Amino acid sequence: MGSKNDFPIVSAAVEILAEFGLQIETRVFSAHRTPIDLNQFLGDIQNQGVKLFIAAAGGAAHLAGVIAAHTVKPVIGIPIQSQFNSGLDSLLSTCQMPSGIPVATVAVNGAKNAGLLAVEILAVNDQTLTDKLKTYRLKLRENVLKSDMELNESLKMN
Amino acid sequence: MGSKNDFPIVSAAVEILAEFGLQIETRVFSAHRTPIDLNQFLGDIQNQGVKLFIAAAGGAAHLAGVIAAHTVKPVIGIPIQSQFNSGLDSLLSTCQMPSGIPVATVAVNGAKNAGLLAVEILAVNDQTLTDKLKTYRLKLRENVLKSDMELNESLKMN
Amino acid sequence: MGSKNDFPIVSAAVEILAEFGLQIETRVFSAHRTPIDLNQFLGDIQNQGVKLFIAAAGGAAHLAGVIAAHTVKPVIGIPIQSQFNSGLDSLLSTCQMPSGIPVATVAVNGAKNAGLLAVEILAVNDQTLTDKLKTYRLKLRENVLKSDMELNESLKMN
Amino acid sequence: MGSKNDFPIVSAAVEILAEFGLQIETRVFSAHRTPIDLNQFLGDIQNQGVKLFIAAAGGAAHLAGVIAAHTVKPVIGIPIQSQFNSGLDSLLSTCQMPSGIPVATVAVNGAKNAGLLAVEILAVNDQTLTDKLKTYRLKLRENVLKSDMELNESLKMN
Amino acid sequence: MGSKNDFPIVSAAVEILAEFGLQIETRVFSAHRTPIDLNQFLGDIQNQGVKLFIAAAGGAAHLAGVIAAHTVKPVIGIPIQSQFNSGLDSLLSTCQMPSGIPVATVAVNGAKNAGLLAVEILAVNDQTLTDKLKTYRLKLRENVLKSDMELNESLKMN
Amino acid sequence: MGSKNDFPIVSAAVEILAEFGLQIETRVFSAHRTPIDLNQFLGDIQNQGVKLFIAAAGGAAHLAGVIAAHTVKPVIGIPIQSQFNSGLDSLLSTCQMPSGIPVATVAVNGAKNAGLLAVEILAVNDQTLTDKLKTYRLKLRENVLKSDMELNESLKMN
Amino acid sequence: MGSKNDFPIVSAAVEILAEFGLQIETRVFSAHRTPIDLNQFLGDIQNQGVKLFIAAAGGAAHLAGVIAAHTVKPVIGIPIQSQFNSGLDSLLSTCQMPSGIPVATVAVNGAKNAGLLAVEILAVNDQTLTDKLKTYRLKLRENVLKSDMELNESLKMN
Amino acid sequence: MGSKNDFPIVSAAVEILAEFGLQIETRVFSAHRTPIDLNQFLGDIQNQGVKLFIAAAGGAAHLAGVIAAHTVKPVIGIPIQSQFNSGLDSLLSTCQMPSGIPVATVAVNGAKNAGLLAVEILAVNDQTLTDKLKTYRLKLRENVLKSDMELNESLKMN
Repeated sequence: MGSKNDFPIVSAAVEILAEFGLQIETRVFSAHRTPIDLNQFLGDIQNQGVKLFIAAAGGAAHLAGVIAAHTVKPVIGIPIQSQFNSGLDSLLSTCQMPSGIPVATVAVNGAKNAGLLAVEILAVNDQTLTDKLKTYRLKLRENVLKSDMELNESLKMN
Repeated sequence: MGSKNDFPIVSAAVEILAEFGLQIETRVFSAHRTPIDLNQFLGDIQNQGVKLFIAAAGGAAHLAGVIAAHTVKPVIGIPIQSQFNSGLDSLLSTCQMPSGIPVATVAVNGAKNAGLLAVEILAVNDQTLTDKLKTYRLKLRENVLKSDMELNESLKMN
Repeated sequence: MGSKNDFPIVSAAVEILAEFGLQIETRVFSAHRTPIDLNQFLGDIQNQGVKLFIAAAGGAAHLAGVIAAHTVKPVIGIPIQSQFNSGLDSLLSTCQMPSGIPVATVAVNGAKNAGLLAVEILAVNDQTLTDKLKTYRLKLRENVLKSDMELNESLKMN
Repeated sequence: MGSKNDFPIVSAAVEILAEFGLQIETRVFSAHRTPIDLNQFLGDIQNQGVKLFIAAAGGAAHLAGVIAAHTVKPVIGIPIQSQFNSGLDSLLSTCQMPSGIPVATVAVNGAKNAGLLAVEILAVNDQTLTDKLKTYRLKLRENVLKSDMELNESLKMN
Repeated sequence: MGSKNDFPIVSAAVEILAEFGLQIETRVFSAHRTPIDLNQFLGDIQNQGVKLFIAAAGGAAHLAGVIAAHTVKPVIGIPIQSQFNSGLDSLLSTCQMPSGIPVATVAVNGAKNAGLLAVEILAVNDQTLTDKLKTYRLKLRENVLKSDMELNESLKMN
Repeated sequence: MGSKNDFPIVSAAVEILAEFGLQIETRVFSAHRTPIDLNQFLGDIQNQGVKLFIAAAGGAAHLAGVIAAHTVKPVIGIPIQSQFNSGLDSLLSTCQMPSGIPVATVAVNGAKNAGLLAVEILAVNDQTLTDKLKTYRLKLRENVLKSDMELNESLKMN
Repeated sequence: MGSKNDFPIVSAAVEILAEFGLQIETRVFSAHRTPIDLNQFLGDIQNQGVKLFIAAAGGAAHLAGVIAAHTVKPVIGIPIQSQFNSGLDSLLSTCQMPSGIPVATVAVNGAKNAGLLAVEILAVNDQTLTDKLKTYRLKLRENVLKSDMELNESLKMN
Repeated sequence: MGSKNDFPIVSAAVEILAEFGLQIETRVFSAHRTPIDLNQFLGDIQNQGVKLFIAAAGGAAHLAGVIAAHTVKPVIGIPIQSQFNSGLDSLLSTCQMPSGIPVATVAVNGAKNAGLLAVEILAVNDQTLTDKLKTYRLKLRENVLKSDMELNESLKMN
């Protein structure tokens, strides 16, 4: 992430990855304030077999794009809600990448979905992860069905 | 894709996937006009071992989201440039997915990047594809360096 | 509605329908988290003679569109105010439907108007409902005239 | 419609209504340039048993709202694409109606859907119209399936 | 104004008009909820020699436009800050009037300026009002110069 | 106006003012390129009894605001359609004036309405101008009614 | 700055300039409420060898543009976050200047960056300032690296 | 610039710099396609005494920000008009930089102003350049005054 302040949002991705038993490294690097450290980290981490990146930044959110420029691994971008138009700047800076260097952008503040997308990518060749994802979806479904039931019960009572 | 009219945009993704030697199935389904056919296709194709989806749609672009609702495979969304604010509707309908069901969104009309993102995802566990992606990146770089050289030569002539 | 969290907004529609003596069924279904349950519900409910649908969702708000894809009954869409630009994403995802599958969209968070629009639709062939609507309008008018009078009285006192 | 210039867009609604065998009256009235004639027309037409209204206007598009203020019949609003941000002004002026007076808004320039929504509303109590709508949907579906087939054939040839 | 809720904003215009000694009538009318009362009021008031109108409304803010449709007196429109994009809907609905029927639009929530614009219009042929406006401007200037001085003094102290 | 290029738009205001027999002075001044000439002109013209100003500019459209800063005469602002978001920059720069210094803003490119608003302001104390405005409105009305008739005739023929 | 109310934002620029040991003059002038005082100040200050200007304003933010019109010194514009779309009006009014009169615009509320940009400009020919800027950047970098370390430590503890 | 395609826009900056007799180096580098070449160039050029940078890019326009991350020289950013909302993405990606790393942003496609801002920055300590800028401004002024005269002459003839 581009700043420690983004962690309360980004933590939702960290939790998902932990919930699915994936090994993660959570780092703070700024594309603008630590460009050389970021480049060095990107070199090192790729040698260590990293499989994909999740980058979160707000405003002129260049972090995901700069990472994508240095790797052919999938880069997932989380536009952090900024103080300008609920993060329109973050969304466009993350998503509107030039031809050749994709960033897989999720919704503004969509850290949980960034985590899930990462799991989906790693599950492409991993049946165990795929099964875990299906179980996770079942829980999502059950939560909605439970909401539905509870609402109807509370409506009947009134 | 949601309409045959989207093919001139979507073809850039098809070409990238072909260039990288990937097996693809190009289909036209509308989330709204063929919901049942789409659902049936999504069931069938997953049994045939499909690894990921690329969905392209414009306006109230629900196609990627509807596909994502039926699969735990990665779904890449291409917001097609509509007649409303250069596709702001397509971008937001594709990207702003609710928690639990991610869509990996690329830029408006970013079909080439959708193709490349698909390759990157499949390359996570495939060194040959990874090497091809690196070669592709080198060509991108060479094109920029060549542009740089040509521009400077033409500037010197004037 | 797409989530139980939308109920505080959606309840304004429920109240209007109750006030006009209409029979309603209030359900929580997510186009993305319960796609199959939703489809099944849409099939069942149509056999039971449902006359129209009101769908409320926020963000990439596909619910109204997905319902409209499965029915030729009128579908009224309520864009729920999201955290992105006061629900611009919800509004565009609900309203900008492709040719062939209309959604009757009301204002962002316009649940009361969704309820009234439903009554107006059912009143097309129902003189009693039409009369009730006219009475309702008279009350709206009286409230404004009363506001007008009260304001003028309070201004005179100062 | 608010201006004769809107007819090339509005005609798509007229054609749909004709296709479904509905009796229509196509009129040009401006909420701003002919307010008294409009009011008089709205009084007259309601006595003649009109069942609903379709209003199309662009810019500060007040026509649908002004009609809705004078009737409890359903009013469908078509925001006409203006020269400002692809009709953002038309969309918001039509859709963001105050509590109490709904306008059923379709997409910018969505005249065909306005016509279909009108048919759906009239079909609520009309099985023949309902059947015609289902047939219409089948044709929409067939067109998509045909597109799908044609695209795949043309792709195979290359 | 369109609703009594707008009075806390509109009162700034009322105060300016009172400060300049102008005779005003402050009324609540809704273009949508009291269309006939509004029309009747507009007829009556013009016979009583009203010189101009100030209209304030939010959302699909039709009030200023509807008044302008019924008079050739200047109509000043105040877009009230709504819950949608800080009143973008109010601004566009008030300002983007069709050719022939102008509304003199001030800033969102710009009630004080609406009052001052009214004074400026009435001052065109009134030297006393013109002089009062010049005095008012001097006070504005003095406030800024005083701010400037105070800030510099407080900066020197630190 | 801020640039000679704006004249094709501004000319609609000039024509209206000529049509109503008003004496006008059409000048090109830039708030940014000729600030001192503009200030001098504003001083001179006010001594010559000018009654109001119409200012047209695009982009960071400061012209109307700068004029308003130097006069207590009414200033009408025409936001000229720029290349950025159909003139969103022009509209906001013209309309969102600070408290104390109003600009009467018309629609983007709304030069005809700027002219009519000027006539309305001058007509406040001028019965002849008021009558001319009423006649003008009647012509507007007749044009709409004629459109209405012609459209219905052409529809009957088909 | 255009108003004393902007000082809590602008002070970040003042602090940076003080931190780098630069001589500053902090003034409140309104382009609209004190146009003549502003012009006089701009004349005077340039004779005193001022090297550049930083202007902060919100809404129809003309201050930076008006200053730029009177000087060939660099003018840095800070768009102050207004109540309209998080300062979209301020940003566009400051940034979208016509050809010939540039304003160096920083982010909405970007006062600290305005101060740093001023230092960078003055450092172009000043090695001591350049060295101070490099030291400042090192501190920025260290802060990010420290954040990174602290976050990782706190994550390990959990 | 980020792509050779930007040259038709960027050339306006090149021409201004040439007109003022400044030594320039015009290069094509992509922040995303040639990140390492760009970094190397930024290192080399700074050793050669470069005084400032002008960066032009569109879409997720990271070029100016990436350059600014590697230098304490002033960086001027030109947002290139993209296909999305007239370059709203380019503007926000260039302008909304995080605290610490400023980019001096000019208008969308404002290459001429980027050139002039560069001259203004270099003129801070260069009286000859300052005089040239004043002469340039006089020509701008004369062009407006000439436009004014020509328009008035052509109006008199009609």
